[in-house]
Amino acid sequence: MAKAPVLTPQADDFPRWYQDVISKAELADNGPVRGTMVIRPYGYGIWERMQQEMDARIKAAGARNAYFPLFIPQSYMTKEAEHVEGFAPELAVVTHGGGKQLEEPAVVRPTSEMIINDYFSRWVQSYRDLPLLINQWANVVRWEMRPRVFLRTTEFLWQEGHTAHATYEDARDFAARIHREVYADFMENVLAVDVVLGRKSPAERFAGAINTLTLEGMMRDGKALQMGTSHELGQNFARAFDTRYLSASGSRELVWQTSWGTSTRMVGGLIMTHGDDNGLRVPPRLAPVQAVVLAIKDDPEVLARVRSLGAELADAGLRVEVDDRTDVPFGRRAVDWELKGVPARVEIGPRDLAAGTAMLARRIPGGKAPVAVDALASVLPGLLEEDQALLLRQSREHRESRTTDVATVEEATAAALAGGWARIPWADLGPEGEKRLAEDAVTVRCLVAEDGSVPVADDAPGTLAVVGRAY
Amino acid sequence: MAKAPVLTPQADDFPRWYQDVISKAELADNGPVRGTMVIRPYGYGIWERMQQEMDARIKAAGARNAYFPLFIPQSYMTKEAEHVEGFAPELAVVTHGGGKQLEEPAVVRPTSEMIINDYFSRWVQSYRDLPLLINQWANVVRWEMRPRVFLRTTEFLWQEGHTAHATYEDARDFAARIHREVYADFMENVLAVDVVLGRKSPAERFAGAINTLTLEGMMRDGKALQMGTSHELGQNFARAFDTRYLSASGSRELVWQTSWGTSTRMVGGLIMTHGDDNGLRVPPRLAPVQAVVLAIKDDPEVLARVRSLGAELADAGLRVEVDDRTDVPFGRRAVDWELKGVPARVEIGPRDLAAGTAMLARRIPGGKAPVAVDALASVLPGLLEEDQALLLRQSREHRESRTTDVATVEEATAAALAGGWARIPWADLGPEGEKRLAEDAVTVRCLVAEDGSVPVADDAPGTLAVVGRAY
Repeated sequence: MAKAPVLTPQADDFPRWYQDVISKAELADNGPVRGTMVIRPYGYGIWERMQQEMDARIKAAGARNAYFPLFIPQSYMTKEAEHVEGFAPELAVVTHGGGKQLEEPAVVRPTSEMIINDYFSRWVQSYRDLPLLINQWANVVRWEMRPRVFLRTTEFLWQEGHTAHATYEDARDFAARIHREVYADFMENVLAVDVVLGRKSPAERFAGAINTLTLEGMMRDGKALQMGTSHELGQNFARAFDTRYLSASGSRELVWQTSWGTSTRMVGGLIMTHGDDNGLRVPPRLAPVQAVVLAIKDDPEVLARVRSLGAELADAGLRVEVDDRTDVPFGRRAVDWELKGVPARVEIGPRDLAAGTAMLARRIPGGKAPVAVDALASVLPGLLEEDQALLLRQSREHRESRTTDVATVEEATAAALAGGWARIPWADLGPEGEKRLAEDAVTVRCLVAEDGSVPVADDAPGTLAVVGRAY
Repeated sequence: MAKAPVLTPQADDFPRWYQDVISKAELADNGPVRGTMVIRPYGYGIWERMQQEMDARIKAAGARNAYFPLFIPQSYMTKEAEHVEGFAPELAVVTHGGGKQLEEPAVVRPTSEMIINDYFSRWVQSYRDLPLLINQWANVVRWEMRPRVFLRTTEFLWQEGHTAHATYEDARDFAARIHREVYADFMENVLAVDVVLGRKSPAERFAGAINTLTLEGMMRDGKALQMGTSHELGQNFARAFDTRYLSASGSRELVWQTSWGTSTRMVGGLIMTHGDDNGLRVPPRLAPVQAVVLAIKDDPEVLARVRSLGAELADAGLRVEVDDRTDVPFGRRAVDWELKGVPARVEIGPRDLAAGTAMLARRIPGGKAPVAVDALASVLPGLLEEDQALLLRQSREHRESRTTDVATVEEATAAALAGGWARIPWADLGPEGEKRLAEDAVTVRCLVAEDGSVPVADDAPGTLAVVGRAY
């Protein structure tokens, strides 16, 4: 019996497939104010797992969480010239509070460099206070003209790190550490998303930064998604807020700073990296539900077994859900779990019970086979690790197979428009070539060294530009 | 050598002591927009621990986390008459976004009943979708004319639960379950704050609720702090949003709802319940740092031992910090940890090392004595449990010793103004007496049954009003 397609096939209309998955897997809805979103429990469960994994890595890097206000006095935004220019068009402004017009309007934070630097300038007194390593989990608002759930929303959730250091080198090394040990490690080893690590071209840098490190993932349609960024801010904000420390030798020195962020946009990246025509595929290490045990029929012995098996799998350390809603047709439930991308679906009916088996459907490689039910708790963790590795391998192979080395702007544009990335020597492309790419909405995603490492400077010999279309 | 007092003594000026603790223990700063706050890492660490403990209990009660937008169309706020009247004076309004005046202004959520009900009305179709149990961790904004850090801030962090049920009884029972199994359990067994559980008088109910359950703690100055509330919303919001379900018999019925919340205000309650003239005292089960191991001197063997002891204590399951900042005077560091209320301070110097001992300072009972350093990992967990129990006992004894049974409004007012609570039969007090109390800023904190349970109705026989002044 052929199933009617629940989703628009990716090949027919990728953006529509994306919207379909988000709606059918109950990840999110559009909010009532244009560009906002409601993150539904399953979507939020994925975000919570991202938070847990990221938070542990951020703390291991030495940063501590704090919370700064949502509202920023409008006058703060003008203190750093490039920064205000970058964010002014996207600001939401509160003009009334408590029934009165405010003396000074407040801006809803689009990012917190400004307000955090105000406090850093008070907290940092001596070199003993450095490095100061702060992270914040928060909502931010950037008014979006062309919103798209998870990818570009007027309000989104994120973490933003902000640090102050005594020296340029220490700040540079910390930005690089976050880039590699926190972000790349999480994306490759938990999200199973192959990412290219590089530095942004000057035109693509964060407003107010002296260097922006980025992680770029290739989505299944060949477009790029910026999955996270880590910025060296130099002394730009320190100068604006006069953030100085007393050095060991008694001089008053400006601090060197970094900031770095990742957001709910990663949920969009997850969907577009691993999803297929049957829905999401969630990497096991991330999955809020790694295995679901389904009762096929409303039978007391079946119900008892799915519940005890659920407990066994949970004892084995797996995140498990038991689906004993036998008042909902089995086929509908199976399709729902498939849409939600739960890695392992274990189905038990009366016949399985008699045979001592269960049907195991593996969402990531696909396929369905009977397994000895008593062996599941010991076998499943290993299978899930195989699935995890498979997703990363598929993501990497996809990116490699769709990346071509080219020599001219024309070839680079053609590769991008064909649904892939091009690598071209930055010395040949340069800011001029970058402008020509822009005519076809093609951008420099990042600059990389020939050996795949992150170049120490834009003009380091052998630097390549990775170009493509982007979300 | 007598120490100069670091804090204003509680007896001299309690509000100033409170501000001193917040500042000296580095819990929070005032934000630049009036009424907002910056939660510093140590204060946020306490909030994170509250979140972890609460979140586990909320999930155990069956609710799942989700996220709804910060911005609510202004028109939504008017849908439920009492609700809009309750919140209108406190709203912050966004009139401009993306450089343009908005067609419809957006309100920054003061609470999310309105927006969540909009989605509940779409998600709830049949009785199979019920109960729908949602929780959200978020920031909310209520414009505050007389702000006070953690207690009343224009922006605060909280969790808000929102549920929909098929029957009145199911909704009522769930509101009661959150009240007791989530909130009271957390406050008594983790925060070590003795709370009185009761129902609000009609005048003190949440705007739009048919019943509000509350938890009231007595602060060290004898004033009350509302630590959390759980509301039965009846069908008021369901009617406003036409949130209906198809019953098993095929009729379309309005849902019954609850909402419930606790916030960063609990941090204020923690400070004012357990703090003393030397600073905070954090209950061990909550404490982000349960034990700190201090190197008294910059000596290689001492440093090696504090680090290895830190690792031993961490292996024993304790949350530990090692303080090896020997470039800061030891006395200053000891006072800082005392201010921060870390339950156990373990000090090691060269002489301790030679004797195989460490000095153990216990913040909660007070006092300092040498202990065998090798025994610490096995002894400390038990001592911390004793400290936890002591804090709850002190909180309970304080409340009981300052609560008096009275018969008249005059006596009730006198008891409250003397710095305590009074219990008075609600049948004698009633809404008229409640108004007279208000002339002296005394309020009915809650209604309780004679046996201490929560009355099933305002007019249940034997119902007592607990009255006092409140934050």
